[in-house]
Amino acid sequence: MSEKHVVVLGAGFAGLNAVRELAREPGLRITLVDRNNYHLFQPLLYQVASGGLESPQIAFPIRAFLRRYTNACFLMGNAERVDPQAKTVTVDGQLLPYDYLLVGVGTRTNDFGLPGVAQYAQGMKGLEDALRIRDRLISACEEAARTSDPQRRKSLLTTVIVGGGPTGVELAGAFAEAKRHVISRDIPEIAGEMRIVLVEGFGRILSAFSESSSRYAERFLRAMGVELVYGDPVAEVGSGGVRFQSGRFVPSFSTIWAAGVTGVAIPGLPAGRGGRIVTAPELFIPEHPEIYVAGDSNALAGDDGKAYPQVAQTAIQQGVLAGCNIVRAVRGQRQKPFRYIDKGNLATLGRNHAIAEIGRLRFKGFAAWALWLVVHLYYLIGFRNRLLVMANWAYSYFTYDFAVRILHKRVAFPETSPQEVRETVRT
Amino acid sequence: MSEKHVVVLGAGFAGLNAVRELAREPGLRITLVDRNNYHLFQPLLYQVASGGLESPQIAFPIRAFLRRYTNACFLMGNAERVDPQAKTVTVDGQLLPYDYLLVGVGTRTNDFGLPGVAQYAQGMKGLEDALRIRDRLISACEEAARTSDPQRRKSLLTTVIVGGGPTGVELAGAFAEAKRHVISRDIPEIAGEMRIVLVEGFGRILSAFSESSSRYAERFLRAMGVELVYGDPVAEVGSGGVRFQSGRFVPSFSTIWAAGVTGVAIPGLPAGRGGRIVTAPELFIPEHPEIYVAGDSNALAGDDGKAYPQVAQTAIQQGVLAGCNIVRAVRGQRQKPFRYIDKGNLATLGRNHAIAEIGRLRFKGFAAWALWLVVHLYYLIGFRNRLLVMANWAYSYFTYDFAVRILHKRVAFPETSPQEVRETVRT
Repeated sequence: MSEKHVVVLGAGFAGLNAVRELAREPGLRITLVDRNNYHLFQPLLYQVASGGLESPQIAFPIRAFLRRYTNACFLMGNAERVDPQAKTVTVDGQLLPYDYLLVGVGTRTNDFGLPGVAQYAQGMKGLEDALRIRDRLISACEEAARTSDPQRRKSLLTTVIVGGGPTGVELAGAFAEAKRHVISRDIPEIAGEMRIVLVEGFGRILSAFSESSSRYAERFLRAMGVELVYGDPVAEVGSGGVRFQSGRFVPSFSTIWAAGVTGVAIPGLPAGRGGRIVTAPELFIPEHPEIYVAGDSNALAGDDGKAYPQVAQTAIQQGVLAGCNIVRAVRGQRQKPFRYIDKGNLATLGRNHAIAEIGRLRFKGFAAWALWLVVHLYYLIGFRNRLLVMANWAYSYFTYDFAVRILHKRVAFPETSPQEVRETVRT
Repeated sequence: MSEKHVVVLGAGFAGLNAVRELAREPGLRITLVDRNNYHLFQPLLYQVASGGLESPQIAFPIRAFLRRYTNACFLMGNAERVDPQAKTVTVDGQLLPYDYLLVGVGTRTNDFGLPGVAQYAQGMKGLEDALRIRDRLISACEEAARTSDPQRRKSLLTTVIVGGGPTGVELAGAFAEAKRHVISRDIPEIAGEMRIVLVEGFGRILSAFSESSSRYAERFLRAMGVELVYGDPVAEVGSGGVRFQSGRFVPSFSTIWAAGVTGVAIPGLPAGRGGRIVTAPELFIPEHPEIYVAGDSNALAGDDGKAYPQVAQTAIQQGVLAGCNIVRAVRGQRQKPFRYIDKGNLATLGRNHAIAEIGRLRFKGFAAWALWLVVHLYYLIGFRNRLLVMANWAYSYFTYDFAVRILHKRVAFPETSPQEVRETVRT
């Protein structure tokens, strides 16, 4: 049997877990392709945005991960096109032939075509996004500290976070803590004016959790001073603020868009609803059984007819199965269908506060928060990252201080305050 | 006595140490001005460039430093102009009146007007510089890994470091260690082709040290595989390489310029040779005794007629004295002249190797290296930074691994290899 070449697109949870399985098979040669040279631990990205962690602490070098596997190599580049007939993928203009292809390229921010979002709102998917959000927050505070115009100060000091999912909620909680514990000590003259507005246009926040957990999160965020806007979806984002469908306007120079994602589409591959690919339960594309799809890219539905949640545990489990199924295909063994094991749901709100739902078990507060810490440290790749994240968290916990307040790139804000300033958000 | 306003320009070693003295005087109000919102610990900047440390670990938030002083505040901005007659300084268009001014704005990279340096070489003064050098090194390695053209690979994998002072030597040593311990394991197929060329155009490397220390450093660098080029100054830097005065050409896409600095000139202030300001021994400008200058900005000469070295200890000592002298001026007391206390000279070369000269005491190797570690941790500001730098160093020391290999911004290299490629550097 000649050596088979497996190309894995994307070094997220799906890709890395697939490589782990594939690399055990001596008859395989594996090429892992990613735009970045690191695996990003997305569940902690919001802590980079809010200044709790440094960016290299949640990023692990792909080449360091691959060192232990002699039959796997890395190619940094953009997967531009797949030709399923010729069985090739084009990476930065270079043609790469494959015997098996695994697609795990994840999602990107979806602006749903709303005007101004792409131009004026900041997405929250990659390290660059998180660093831009941090630089913007710090720049806005420094600018507000020397601005006498109260209208302009208001726009500078208001952050609108759109999307009540875990990303939006965790960001809002972290910003509120930064306001209370850091900015109140660093720039006391402006801390009182800081506003954090969390927008959930359609339902309740953290809709993946039970209603009681949702309400707990809501109470906690309100107590921390976060303003919640329900049932009034965003209509437009401008340089000077956010306009809602009801017509109300919130003046703000900083809008964060955490309201939705869509699959990263690669030309040549079929793309279904939301840019995701529907596969057989065995995770391959029926028309091209040598192409597997795992993680957020896969739109496979469970027994209830709903697609599996786009979370890390789905990606990990599908990555492992896709890797195993490719090995089985090479060996001529039978493919196994995907069975999702729901390990539960966790979200952190702030210091000592989180919510956890594991099967029928629901708990909140400190116990959930401690569990959240342990789980996130456990899944974080690399001893060094675990060590430094733990050191950072311990430091922040005992000092009430945020680790990273270094402004890398100063942000320039619009010169004038928005013409139409209607103060209408009520909590 | 009415409250006096002291404006301190620059939050380097001089500025911070001056603020510490000034803030003790209840009758003073202090405004510290800096372009950045952090104090940069420049002696460790090369470790950020070579991937040993993360950037926020050598940067300390100015506002966190100022928390303890109730009579000091921070203004982030660019000092654009000083009007000594009106006693005002313009910061980002805002007029700031002062009673006393302390200038400690340091230096910037000096290209000596050599063609191509400003455009194609990378300076090494700020965090941005260091991050750009790191991104360039990582990008070049990734690109070389997938490039078959041997000429292009050579240009990608050659780094030319111009300047044999501590910055150049420490960078060369750190790059050589990265080649030996990290790249040889991460991308073994290219590690052998990596070249690090250190250029000292005029004298010997580390000329502030004795000749024997200099020779020790030279031997160590050569043993690590660094190529040393002596006595042939750079004539021009291009997109594809470096041309020397002798006419020889080294093909390289990455040139680092650590060959010289010049004072940051602020319009309205007198600027002497090298952009530095000559003051009275008491550190004020004779024509404007309410303006003090400390650190790299000050060109004051010692008893030997030579300007004091532009190093951290000069800046610290002058900052303290300038702060004290301003307090004395306010109180109507006599000014004290500057007395330089030479605490010795330290430079690290690599793992377990450094050189130290303290008075007549000279030592090398492990003892010097251990001293270097302790001194640098001691002067690093902030418990968190010390803790994390120590954790990073311990990790790197025991694993032979470099902490930070995350590529933040991929660098695009020139498409073609340079036309004229003459391989002429001999070691």
